[in-house]
Amino acid sequence: MTGVFIVFEGGDGVGKSTQSQLLTSWLQEEGYTVVQTFEPGDSAVGSKIREILLSPETGELAPRAEALLYAADKAAHCSQVVLPALEQGKVVVCDRYIDSMIAYQGAGRVLDTAEVEQLARWASADLVPDLTIVLDLDADIAISGLSELDRIESAGSAFHARVRQHFLRLAQRDPQRYLVIPARLPIAENAARIQARVAALLAECLTLAD
Amino acid sequence: MTGVFIVFEGGDGVGKSTQSQLLTSWLQEEGYTVVQTFEPGDSAVGSKIREILLSPETGELAPRAEALLYAADKAAHCSQVVLPALEQGKVVVCDRYIDSMIAYQGAGRVLDTAEVEQLARWASADLVPDLTIVLDLDADIAISGLSELDRIESAGSAFHARVRQHFLRLAQRDPQRYLVIPARLPIAENAARIQARVAALLAECLTLAD
Repeated sequence: MTGVFIVFEGGDGVGKSTQSQLLTSWLQEEGYTVVQTFEPGDSAVGSKIREILLSPETGELAPRAEALLYAADKAAHCSQVVLPALEQGKVVVCDRYIDSMIAYQGAGRVLDTAEVEQLARWASADLVPDLTIVLDLDADIAISGLSELDRIESAGSAFHARVRQHFLRLAQRDPQRYLVIPARLPIAENAARIQARVAALLAECLTLAD
Repeated sequence: MTGVFIVFEGGDGVGKSTQSQLLTSWLQEEGYTVVQTFEPGDSAVGSKIREILLSPETGELAPRAEALLYAADKAAHCSQVVLPALEQGKVVVCDRYIDSMIAYQGAGRVLDTAEVEQLARWASADLVPDLTIVLDLDADIAISGLSELDRIESAGSAFHARVRQHFLRLAQRDPQRYLVIPARLPIAENAARIQARVAALLAECLTLAD
């Protein structure tokens, strides 16, 4: 495996897709081959699973069934999209990964967070990102910036505050592999900080590959 | 929980649906309220998951993704169909359950059987059947009786022999909760043996409830 795996995490409305796109463009300008992707839904079977998760016809979904559907999406995405790109030496930039599953499925307090983490790790066959960038923002501010809210986005302040704490806790556990960015700063300033950290990571990976 | 949970397991073509139906009819004649059901697919979300699993559009599915989809189906089925019926004191007769998932997902030898079992038990929130009836038949004989074969049924002799061994191994591990029936015997004879065992189970449950 010679590629580099970079993940964006954080609550809804913090600017993950914007920073994901800016990082991808910068990497491409630097001459890297990049696969920009996301979870859930960015694989052949993932798009069908996403339909089930979001369709109103599905009705109330048991918490374990929901977590297992997210895990199935992750397993398909890792094996069909992320791993093949990494094996070809590409840089993979992914919007949401394991931490989102732990934070969202665990924040509902119905499921045990450690069990959800074990499930997510099994689904991904223990594929760990080289760098996870957490865009951190007070949940109320983030949500207030969104125009239309889906089922999860409208789950309430306390829920989103717990989600945010999960992301920060995961980052604290393994600081070498995490970059936490206060997402309230100007977009360009955050993009520059992310580029600096990723440039250091790529230099390190090149050194290791020599 | 006051209901009774009875499961039929065994390879393809051994007669599970026939015996499931015969047992259900007999129980109804005896005055029990019965929910006859099956896995995968017998819930609102399960039918959509089953479509994904069987649709040719899905293409090659990663083994972990496939196992997780079966697990999601099981979680939805347990929580929406099996548990509510048991809580209402009904008898649930289910065609395939945890053992099928272990036997089929494990028999491909790609996934670790113990991990698949752990996954299936998490999905079902450790809901254990009161009785599992294994219809046992030489795999070549069972398959030769089927007219059209689906993807799994046509997976080859060695695969089906391994599936059979998994069912027998699970039954040996917990003989109190299993009844293994040689499925080659006449249908009526097997139905009578099953009725006798179920009658004993129901008498036992009634005694416990007193």
